[in-house]
Amino acid sequence: MGGSIFGRYFKVATFGESHGAALGCIVDGCPSNLSLSEADIQSFLDKRKPGQSDISTPRKESDSCRILSGVFEGKTLGTPIALIIENANQKSSDYSEIAKLWRPSHADFTYDAKFGIRDPRGGGRSSARETAARVAAGAIARMCMPSIVIRAWVESVHSISMPSFDGMPSEEDIESNAVRCPHAPTALRMVEFIKKARAEGDSVGGVIRCRISNAPAGLGEPVFDRLEADLAKAMLSIPACKGFEIGSGFAGTRMFGSAHNDEFFVGEGGEVRTKTNYAGGVLGGISNGQMIDFRVAFKPTATILKEQKTLSLNKEPTTVVGRGRHDPCVLPRAVAVVEAMASLVLADAVLAAGKSLPL
Amino acid sequence: MGGSIFGRYFKVATFGESHGAALGCIVDGCPSNLSLSEADIQSFLDKRKPGQSDISTPRKESDSCRILSGVFEGKTLGTPIALIIENANQKSSDYSEIAKLWRPSHADFTYDAKFGIRDPRGGGRSSARETAARVAAGAIARMCMPSIVIRAWVESVHSISMPSFDGMPSEEDIESNAVRCPHAPTALRMVEFIKKARAEGDSVGGVIRCRISNAPAGLGEPVFDRLEADLAKAMLSIPACKGFEIGSGFAGTRMFGSAHNDEFFVGEGGEVRTKTNYAGGVLGGISNGQMIDFRVAFKPTATILKEQKTLSLNKEPTTVVGRGRHDPCVLPRAVAVVEAMASLVLADAVLAAGKSLPL
Amino acid sequence: MGGSIFGRYFKVATFGESHGAALGCIVDGCPSNLSLSEADIQSFLDKRKPGQSDISTPRKESDSCRILSGVFEGKTLGTPIALIIENANQKSSDYSEIAKLWRPSHADFTYDAKFGIRDPRGGGRSSARETAARVAAGAIARMCMPSIVIRAWVESVHSISMPSFDGMPSEEDIESNAVRCPHAPTALRMVEFIKKARAEGDSVGGVIRCRISNAPAGLGEPVFDRLEADLAKAMLSIPACKGFEIGSGFAGTRMFGSAHNDEFFVGEGGEVRTKTNYAGGVLGGISNGQMIDFRVAFKPTATILKEQKTLSLNKEPTTVVGRGRHDPCVLPRAVAVVEAMASLVLADAVLAAGKSLPL
Amino acid sequence: MGGSIFGRYFKVATFGESHGAALGCIVDGCPSNLSLSEADIQSFLDKRKPGQSDISTPRKESDSCRILSGVFEGKTLGTPIALIIENANQKSSDYSEIAKLWRPSHADFTYDAKFGIRDPRGGGRSSARETAARVAAGAIARMCMPSIVIRAWVESVHSISMPSFDGMPSEEDIESNAVRCPHAPTALRMVEFIKKARAEGDSVGGVIRCRISNAPAGLGEPVFDRLEADLAKAMLSIPACKGFEIGSGFAGTRMFGSAHNDEFFVGEGGEVRTKTNYAGGVLGGISNGQMIDFRVAFKPTATILKEQKTLSLNKEPTTVVGRGRHDPCVLPRAVAVVEAMASLVLADAVLAAGKSLPL
Repeated sequence: MGGSIFGRYFKVATFGESHGAALGCIVDGCPSNLSLSEADIQSFLDKRKPGQSDISTPRKESDSCRILSGVFEGKTLGTPIALIIENANQKSSDYSEIAKLWRPSHADFTYDAKFGIRDPRGGGRSSARETAARVAAGAIARMCMPSIVIRAWVESVHSISMPSFDGMPSEEDIESNAVRCPHAPTALRMVEFIKKARAEGDSVGGVIRCRISNAPAGLGEPVFDRLEADLAKAMLSIPACKGFEIGSGFAGTRMFGSAHNDEFFVGEGGEVRTKTNYAGGVLGGISNGQMIDFRVAFKPTATILKEQKTLSLNKEPTTVVGRGRHDPCVLPRAVAVVEAMASLVLADAVLAAGKSLPL
Repeated sequence: MGGSIFGRYFKVATFGESHGAALGCIVDGCPSNLSLSEADIQSFLDKRKPGQSDISTPRKESDSCRILSGVFEGKTLGTPIALIIENANQKSSDYSEIAKLWRPSHADFTYDAKFGIRDPRGGGRSSARETAARVAAGAIARMCMPSIVIRAWVESVHSISMPSFDGMPSEEDIESNAVRCPHAPTALRMVEFIKKARAEGDSVGGVIRCRISNAPAGLGEPVFDRLEADLAKAMLSIPACKGFEIGSGFAGTRMFGSAHNDEFFVGEGGEVRTKTNYAGGVLGGISNGQMIDFRVAFKPTATILKEQKTLSLNKEPTTVVGRGRHDPCVLPRAVAVVEAMASLVLADAVLAAGKSLPL
Repeated sequence: MGGSIFGRYFKVATFGESHGAALGCIVDGCPSNLSLSEADIQSFLDKRKPGQSDISTPRKESDSCRILSGVFEGKTLGTPIALIIENANQKSSDYSEIAKLWRPSHADFTYDAKFGIRDPRGGGRSSARETAARVAAGAIARMCMPSIVIRAWVESVHSISMPSFDGMPSEEDIESNAVRCPHAPTALRMVEFIKKARAEGDSVGGVIRCRISNAPAGLGEPVFDRLEADLAKAMLSIPACKGFEIGSGFAGTRMFGSAHNDEFFVGEGGEVRTKTNYAGGVLGGISNGQMIDFRVAFKPTATILKEQKTLSLNKEPTTVVGRGRHDPCVLPRAVAVVEAMASLVLADAVLAAGKSLPL
Repeated sequence: MGGSIFGRYFKVATFGESHGAALGCIVDGCPSNLSLSEADIQSFLDKRKPGQSDISTPRKESDSCRILSGVFEGKTLGTPIALIIENANQKSSDYSEIAKLWRPSHADFTYDAKFGIRDPRGGGRSSARETAARVAAGAIARMCMPSIVIRAWVESVHSISMPSFDGMPSEEDIESNAVRCPHAPTALRMVEFIKKARAEGDSVGGVIRCRISNAPAGLGEPVFDRLEADLAKAMLSIPACKGFEIGSGFAGTRMFGSAHNDEFFVGEGGEVRTKTNYAGGVLGGISNGQMIDFRVAFKPTATILKEQKTLSLNKEPTTVVGRGRHDPCVLPRAVAVVEAMASLVLADAVLAAGKSLPL
């Protein structure tokens, strides 16, 4: 039961069904005296909201957030910050048919199995619309640690991958195109590929990369609450996510230890650094001060416009054709969600470490 | 701070440094009236213990566990079960040199950064020896759900992979060789490869696969506490783990939705099944009754017998050569740890679902 | 940090400042398929809301709640239930003076010490207005266990106590007067006493009694999460609460064991009962099937209309006179809060026990 | 299920049955680099151990604790500290008769109702012997905040109360007599009273007072995790505890607000103080820098040497006469437990507040 509360110190409780009255969250544990306005949050929500480009769903939602508590005269109070996003464009009449069957690769069947009831309107609680609340919470988490940079982008769509590179891409490059890939020529090909898949009534997946710079050494806990373990949980909690790897990841399993071990050296400022970063910024579950670097796999969108065989609630064969307003590829909008979840994990680790905030 | 307690309902707290007096755990939340003996636990510990074969460390530890509480006349009481494993073969004199530097790819540096103190004997708390306590706890978790089968094996070592197959391999096939790969010809090649790496003073990584059958539909929670999210956290909390993927995982990012969506059908017993299992047994964070299927990436062992450059505690250049008793490849012994962590996650989900136990 | 989330299984996160935009809560962990409407909740909110009688504050708040999620077509979905209560009558202009000093016996000083910032409007987060969200959550908790009866009433106001009695008073008797004391002649004296105190610009405290019937044996956990321990925490978390006792309580410390030990016997239905109930319904932290019976002490309202000496924020002597709209005695309205918190504890214990709901 | 883990930041998991192999605890979250030895802990265990005087049980237990992990060369590592206390004097043959019935006012019946199984030897997990592990954990908690003084003593036994006084009694005065009452003439009368009750085969209860000085303002959280709420939970989790009151407590319910409100003034060192302390050191759930002051009610020991009527497990009438080695009054030994639980709450609040330790 439950399952909608995240974090041990910087705690976030979310609520909301896709076509319910509203969705939102409570952030409990945010430090006091930080500047926070609805505009700070809105800029992140805008990156996730539907209808941004011609490769995302045409559902119209302003995704305007309203702060209900925890902020007074522009400063956080240290008390719970509640946020609400009203659902403007609900169109719930569309969903009577879907209520009678289980859409393939959706959570319809498992929600029925678990709860014996389901809100069929737009997927209810299982809709990725729920992640708007996470993005809002993540925006607050960032305010706790302004010097830490958390940035995600689309690295591959289906078989199209951008060239590998070191360092942190600029936000401008990421935001320069509809697919949020900082390598413009690749982005162009990705957009064409997504449009072609959509034209065929199909959908595609891909990989989001996330890097975090300026995180101090010492974040994360030994044994279970390792930083990479919390990041893995955070990422696998995002709808459609099927994989997580940090540093060398799966490719690192094909290296020898002598090549994989990152050599320490002393940087120009006297700080301890490593020559390579196969570790991905963590050693023994704790940040080592290098770039935290991980990749997140997303499956192709479950909703497709082709006819698919499935079962009705009474287990009779039937078919379903996706309608409504869906993204042929979730990745461009999921970038904001990956960043948000990473922000929640980092803020939690920062608070756990007892560092004085803001960092 | 903290970080050594796992689970929300079936809770496990572990303790112990590699060369301390003992290690062990407390399991709080185990249902009452289950049969449990030290022998039940020992059989799992034996799979993880050192010195099992000529490709693992020669450190001698019987890893005998002693139940201190929570069991009366062979039955669990519903009260905390404490387990202790004394460290027999400590040899802590070996570690004076290591105390003065940071071994590459180990947690020496990050523990120093976080805690300002470190037990240098065998890696202290960051040693994989800590996982013995997890294996013991996992053995208890299994007792809660005897009908669920949780089985892991080595799928690849470095570039050597076994052929893909469906279904659950037999325990006999897995245990038939030192590397715990159920495909005998591949296992042979893996063993030779590991021996060769060791002879060169080097180490290798690989991938462990885990499948879970007979898990009922309905396990896992929406949003954050998804079953796959908890599995991801559990796996990434294992030392040397760098990646997790469930179902189609990273490969699934290169599929179209029309191919990736698993088609529902009604099985012979009237149960709902899917023709393919790209989902890996979970939809929307909740088990769908199909095989739960995931892969876990392990980096090559950090300790190698080649000389490596590194830094001393005062940031002076120095070198280190691995000594002591280490595994050139952690995977054969990590199989038991992957199974144990999966067992903890499943038992927790089962208790959360409020199903009457044992399943 | 944090502190606004309650419960381990039936979890409640609350938010809201007294004069902020709104207050409310998220309930995460409520079972699915329970009937729930806003009217179910409103009836409990109405017992707590201001302006019910001539002995409570004249602040006008309809305290209308709106369910934002977790309920579909009148049934709970098993997903988070979010509730919002808009603040209608904020009048925040009243509070400029109070912002500059620390009111005696209020949380102004401690919030400043802890957070370095405070919402001075009506006490902000420290206002008892926050308890409206708890009452709403408690109303949902009751839906999980309809056969368990949880009832509280005012037992004493200052030195005026109602006669002792066994059993459960009727809701009609409790609601028959403004002070919520089921003994009409005593209630009359209490009302007069409160009016007299108010006329003198003063305030009074008292004791609320709560009894819970039909709770099955077996609720509560050994050692720390005892049922009485969770009840104690729940009650002491209510503003103005200074004490909790269960069963014989403090009076029981003046009894001998031979008199205090409750003798078991077999009831008419074959159930195990006790002849006396000095235990108050719990043995070893676990309910024994008898009436759960406890008392809660409330201090006199901190706000009084007499001039009091105090300090300004820069530690200069000053004076303060209570204004605004306050209760001279919080107990009549706190009855609903005591019931709500008891409901949260019971629902949590019921879910922890894994009993199938509804009971 | 569960229930044997306490704390959110300074977490303690305990284990052990009265006559099992051992009892102990894991402390997860203790800061690193604190000095800690077994002797530091032993001095507190010695205050709780049986057989200290002629008014406590003659059971012989050295209650020697052994640290298994988390400490290296006399300093805490920041990793889990495990402690074990072997049960030396088990004498479990005594308990065959008790296994067949439910002793009045003990947890035999409720454990059977909840778990369907019970360790009858000395009360198993429900025995107050379990509190030895808490005392050990509390000793570690104190090390985190050496400047905070936490001291408890026996204020009343049955109807015999010591005179009221302000300030903190000396440890010497408390330890100067077998009953741990700092007022020698009262202590003498208490001892005589306890001896007389024991001679009659009876038992007595009483009240323990606890005061905490030097706690900084700002500890505790708003709303649910109030400092007084956590203290109340901690105290009510102690076996035989039936009540808790802080500051004016139940007596304060008979005061007027004008008398009860503590007036702020500026102390000699420029610190904010209050002239009276009816609040007991907390305002709005947060410490105000004054003495934290609370009282804890303990019922008379359940085990008495008089014959009592009760029921057998098959609900047949039978009788029971207490045997074995029991305390006629638990209070002298419970003083150490009250201090330990208060220490756990304070350490948790200190860590939550993010203050740099040690204070």
